[in-house]
Amino acid sequence: MIEKVAFIGAGKVAWHLAQALQKHCEITEIYSRNLDTAQELAERVSANATNSLDFSKSEAQLLIISIPDDAIEGVSKELKITNNVLVVHTSGAKPREIFDPFFEKNGVFYPLQTFSKEKEVDFLNIPFCLDAKQTQDLENLKNLADLLSKKVYKMTSEQRGNLHVAAVFANNFVNHFLTIAENQLAKANLPLEILENLVRETIDKAFDIGPSNAQTGPAIRGDKQTIQQHLKRIEEESRKELYQKLSKDIQDFYSTDRS
Amino acid sequence: MIEKVAFIGAGKVAWHLAQALQKHCEITEIYSRNLDTAQELAERVSANATNSLDFSKSEAQLLIISIPDDAIEGVSKELKITNNVLVVHTSGAKPREIFDPFFEKNGVFYPLQTFSKEKEVDFLNIPFCLDAKQTQDLENLKNLADLLSKKVYKMTSEQRGNLHVAAVFANNFVNHFLTIAENQLAKANLPLEILENLVRETIDKAFDIGPSNAQTGPAIRGDKQTIQQHLKRIEEESRKELYQKLSKDIQDFYSTDRS
Repeated sequence: MIEKVAFIGAGKVAWHLAQALQKHCEITEIYSRNLDTAQELAERVSANATNSLDFSKSEAQLLIISIPDDAIEGVSKELKITNNVLVVHTSGAKPREIFDPFFEKNGVFYPLQTFSKEKEVDFLNIPFCLDAKQTQDLENLKNLADLLSKKVYKMTSEQRGNLHVAAVFANNFVNHFLTIAENQLAKANLPLEILENLVRETIDKAFDIGPSNAQTGPAIRGDKQTIQQHLKRIEEESRKELYQKLSKDIQDFYSTDRS
Repeated sequence: MIEKVAFIGAGKVAWHLAQALQKHCEITEIYSRNLDTAQELAERVSANATNSLDFSKSEAQLLIISIPDDAIEGVSKELKITNNVLVVHTSGAKPREIFDPFFEKNGVFYPLQTFSKEKEVDFLNIPFCLDAKQTQDLENLKNLADLLSKKVYKMTSEQRGNLHVAAVFANNFVNHFLTIAENQLAKANLPLEILENLVRETIDKAFDIGPSNAQTGPAIRGDKQTIQQHLKRIEEESRKELYQKLSKDIQDFYSTDRS
């Protein structure tokens, strides 16, 4: 059982995860390159702040590396640990296998969510995506994740990679479409708020009956007249193209995959 | 004041709107080309069913045309009414002005929502977008809409046109991205459900702090490595292109419009 946990990184994910884990384990150290940053989180979870990657004297059984993706390998090279410590990262995009050259016991502890430092996080419904090189480590991570969330998934790097692509469509791109919608509304002096009820109903329906059963609109209806009128109203060339490509993808999907 | 209303059309919008309006006015007739279809709704709202477009003997003060967009003009040509009847359609895409050659008193009564026949509708938070050629008619429509919803907007065809484009991005395209996400997850034997919490948080955040303040992900971070890895995982050429175009639109938007 994992009872002592240290964090490498004190950003948004570490910020929320450390405070949630503190209710169930001892947080031993918080590392950040910037000691003040480490200190701020360390105080909240009664841990020691450090800006040294020498963890050879740490009592932590689990090191959670929660830093920007591209820094994980560099930090792994520098990190000094004892042999029986499990090292995990919290990244959706990086394979677990990047740890293999560095640590015998390694894994992934990825909470699938978009975090803001200001907004409190209830982990209960946040999916935890777990992976580990060794079976016993995976079980230990599962026991830990079960303390935080009802939704714990074991998955390979391959699965997590596809999940991360899906999350980009469902989070980043969806959000950007709301930005595009807001821009288009601004041209007519209308607030984004006018779409809130529609968007929430769209989401409810997609998760209720499945998005492919819920698809509506001019593209799936083949309503060329409306599509032409919409294209005239979109000023930005790149967004005209987006509109056309999306409409075509909808039409192709429903004519080939489903009929 | 509008006390008697007839419906031309018995589809999803008419189905919900007639039942909601029945609590406040008398529904006199339900027209559908197919008399059985008209009958089904007419029975629910204690109206007469008809498949004739001769409304010269109807007592309705308001005729709500709620049929597919491209049928509105054809029906308007055939419709027989007395002079003091107000005729409106419920379309987001069609200009009010298409009525001008046919009816002196005309307008738009557009509830901004995606309707399913099976799912009950609470109009209270559904925006009603109103327009009318004559000022008094617009006031009458507003009084009627106020009985159903807290969110009543007067807007021109130009404004409604832009709203409709925005709604396609925020509803149809957002929903299709969830379909794409579901497809990508299926490749990894993962259910769409795993994204539900993330999507709901994305929507909450977008309407809370504004979508352009909430944007995250590899595109806005300029994380080329992750973008390349994602592109490798997307098999469909058209969706690869969508991913690239969206990422570019995000990068262009945040480098030009906002810095």
